[in-house]
Amino acid sequence: MKKIKNVSIVGVGLIGGSIGLALRKIKRNIRVTGIGRNTVKLARAKKAGAVEKFTTDFVEGVKDADLIIIAVPVSKTSEMIKKLIDGIKTGTIVIDVGSVKGKVVKEAERLLTGKGHFVGTHPMAGSERTGVENAKAGLFQGSTCIITETRKTDKEALNAVRALWKAVGANVLILDPETHDRLVAEVSHLNHVLAFALASQVGENHRRNEDISKIAAGSYNDMTRIATSSSGIWADICIDNRVALLKSISNYEKKLTILKTLINKKDKSALIKKFDRAKKSREDIIRCQK
Amino acid sequence: MKKIKNVSIVGVGLIGGSIGLALRKIKRNIRVTGIGRNTVKLARAKKAGAVEKFTTDFVEGVKDADLIIIAVPVSKTSEMIKKLIDGIKTGTIVIDVGSVKGKVVKEAERLLTGKGHFVGTHPMAGSERTGVENAKAGLFQGSTCIITETRKTDKEALNAVRALWKAVGANVLILDPETHDRLVAEVSHLNHVLAFALASQVGENHRRNEDISKIAAGSYNDMTRIATSSSGIWADICIDNRVALLKSISNYEKKLTILKTLINKKDKSALIKKFDRAKKSREDIIRCQK
Repeated sequence: MKKIKNVSIVGVGLIGGSIGLALRKIKRNIRVTGIGRNTVKLARAKKAGAVEKFTTDFVEGVKDADLIIIAVPVSKTSEMIKKLIDGIKTGTIVIDVGSVKGKVVKEAERLLTGKGHFVGTHPMAGSERTGVENAKAGLFQGSTCIITETRKTDKEALNAVRALWKAVGANVLILDPETHDRLVAEVSHLNHVLAFALASQVGENHRRNEDISKIAAGSYNDMTRIATSSSGIWADICIDNRVALLKSISNYEKKLTILKTLINKKDKSALIKKFDRAKKSREDIIRCQK
Repeated sequence: MKKIKNVSIVGVGLIGGSIGLALRKIKRNIRVTGIGRNTVKLARAKKAGAVEKFTTDFVEGVKDADLIIIAVPVSKTSEMIKKLIDGIKTGTIVIDVGSVKGKVVKEAERLLTGKGHFVGTHPMAGSERTGVENAKAGLFQGSTCIITETRKTDKEALNAVRALWKAVGANVLILDPETHDRLVAEVSHLNHVLAFALASQVGENHRRNEDISKIAAGSYNDMTRIATSSSGIWADICIDNRVALLKSISNYEKKLTILKTLINKKDKSALIKKFDRAKKSREDIIRCQK
């Protein structure tokens, strides 16, 4: 963190904006530049205090940067690196913040060979909300940020990136890109697919019977909250992480089949056993989070 | 509500206890008796202020009652009615608070013919928590309570029960028992099965890889909250409402299949369309709740 003076953030939305706010809060002499295509959004980021200045010139915007943060939807990461590659100083650290890692890390490492040091990161502190207007300096406080390490990862860059995420309040977990993709499919991507499916089913019922909205309460609201997430971002994530995600969905379908069979057989004691085990699993995980 | 002076509550847990607290708060001259088998629990309910007195004698406990509230797991409702039937005055109103209605309402009406007036009710204000220690007078404030009406329902009793639920802050919705069961399968019972299945799957992964608990965050926590609900109560509900519930689960599986197919085909625009529609459905329902 010590050597980082100039930071360029490509894409100043919820995540990019929150990093800008956090960095400027903890390190007064840091200079943060916002880069993007939409000057209205960039001006909003400046007004919010997430960046000190901004530009739509990608090459110009990164030429003094010690650290470049690419905070755009996963499908756009490579495209962004290509747009700014001519401005990158040798040895500059480049990170992304995307939810899928395998393919992105491989491509970014290839594109940056001999130029910047790429380190993949995934701050697990999103929200169903988007845009710099929802950004806040404390977004990462107490959350987990996964950093990916590969055989190509520069150790010094990795340490600097770890220090950066710790500085903004995150607990760092280092994984290889493939393990990352498998685990987040299980605890995040699967949830989003389940929520979208549930919101879609209840929506159809609601169109047939308005009373649905009078009785859809706590559990419906909680279980569909993330179905209001950005459809574009999530379509990208689902497609980019499809191998791990499709496996998670299939495993989930097997769980449903087991429960259906027990319900159909009216096997109360087996159902109680399953439910108790599920309950205990959740309690174990919640305890570990503390 | 005017004529109701003596209320007996069978089963003084979260729901029974909260009704007791609410009634005693809004109507100072009401006398609430708690009935159950466990004197430790009954004494706790008295200490919490949910009942004025209590007894383990079911017949004795209801003999002065103008209103009997049966607040036990759905599978026990008929059994409770049988236990207290010899104490019921002719014309006494008897309600339950269970989450499944079809079979229960039919049986209760049959058992009470010529004795009490049965009205099925389902306050949708539960919680994953249980027990009188979690009861509160405001539990029903702003929630929906479904009241079931059948050809056998006494109109005066129905009006009194409606007034009762309104008095404790609930919005009342009147449905026939079958429609009730179909709709709550969709917006509540399905959610519980989905949450139990998810908690169970993530639990298995957690036992294989401890890092799971470091990255399971907001969406996991929200989507599995209700997996900590009482396993016994939910095994009963799933079995009692199995016809409607199994249909809901099958419909849900179809939704998952559609999403899997689109993800597998990398059909981004179709996925975005599906996600946007799901998002809009949720926004419509949340808007109607207000």
